[in-house]
Amino acid sequence: MKILLPEPLTASAFAPFGEVIAVNAAQRHFSINGGNTERYHDLAELVPGPDGKLIVSLFRGQPRALPFAIEMLERHPLGSQAFMPLGDQPYLIVVAPPGPPPGPDDLRAFLAQPGAGVNYAPGTWHHPLLALNAVSDFLVIDRSGPGNNCDETAITPPVQLALA
Amino acid sequence: MKILLPEPLTASAFAPFGEVIAVNAAQRHFSINGGNTERYHDLAELVPGPDGKLIVSLFRGQPRALPFAIEMLERHPLGSQAFMPLGDQPYLIVVAPPGPPPGPDDLRAFLAQPGAGVNYAPGTWHHPLLALNAVSDFLVIDRSGPGNNCDETAITPPVQLALA
Repeated sequence: MKILLPEPLTASAFAPFGEVIAVNAAQRHFSINGGNTERYHDLAELVPGPDGKLIVSLFRGQPRALPFAIEMLERHPLGSQAFMPLGDQPYLIVVAPPGPPPGPDDLRAFLAQPGAGVNYAPGTWHHPLLALNAVSDFLVIDRSGPGNNCDETAITPPVQLALA
Repeated sequence: MKILLPEPLTASAFAPFGEVIAVNAAQRHFSINGGNTERYHDLAELVPGPDGKLIVSLFRGQPRALPFAIEMLERHPLGSQAFMPLGDQPYLIVVAPPGPPPGPDDLRAFLAQPGAGVNYAPGTWHHPLLALNAVSDFLVIDRSGPGNNCDETAITPPVQLALA
């Protein structure tokens, strides 16, 4: 089985898929609250899509065992979906760019550290949550609204996600 | 100076001011991702307001020293503002209901634990970030758009926020 190894998560590497939500990915920050607080401003393009609205939810994911077989990806064609980790563990991301259903050679993986979230642009293919090491909570901002907003595609043959 | 002591943060106690964003405040949750993940669904009413859009930012706050004098509150009349703590420290919330500028007797305080965020409804009077113990990061979902979306009011005389 083809082995897929993660890259470090950086704003530039992740740009084809959406945005990184992290202090060190901010293009603009400024002081507020009389100097008490630094605001790292407007870090992702949140897209509610046609007749949709943005909602906030919490996802609690069980940790995955590695190596892990990537057998499918999903996409949300109508709206964005942002994930922010709330705990102290890293997690994994597997994506392919918006467009036709991807094959095994189209996948890229990223290792995200605590404090770094991602926002998937509408249509970005991605694997469901890949928590590591412990049960992990994420804040999620995504779309509620009419229409089909979830497509799945099989990855054939599967690829093997590993850390090294 | 009048002393203001925090209550525990619960969804029902906080209801006049907005919503609590926490697993144990969810009215609805269900399993997704083939059973890997539990989704605690749609935890807050996010309001972009007239001609506005929702944006996501990170706030990095310096810890406050207690007791702390509450000398002002602010409100965002046009949109909601949600705060989710990303670290492992508790924090404090001081609020007054939407309506006329509050006086010292109108204030309520809440002690929020890690894993529990809040969403201020449009117009809810609130003190700027009150981190405790350590430099603390929060994910913030609020409004970007035209018009004045921040009013401040003085609390006269100030009240003293303390833990006990």
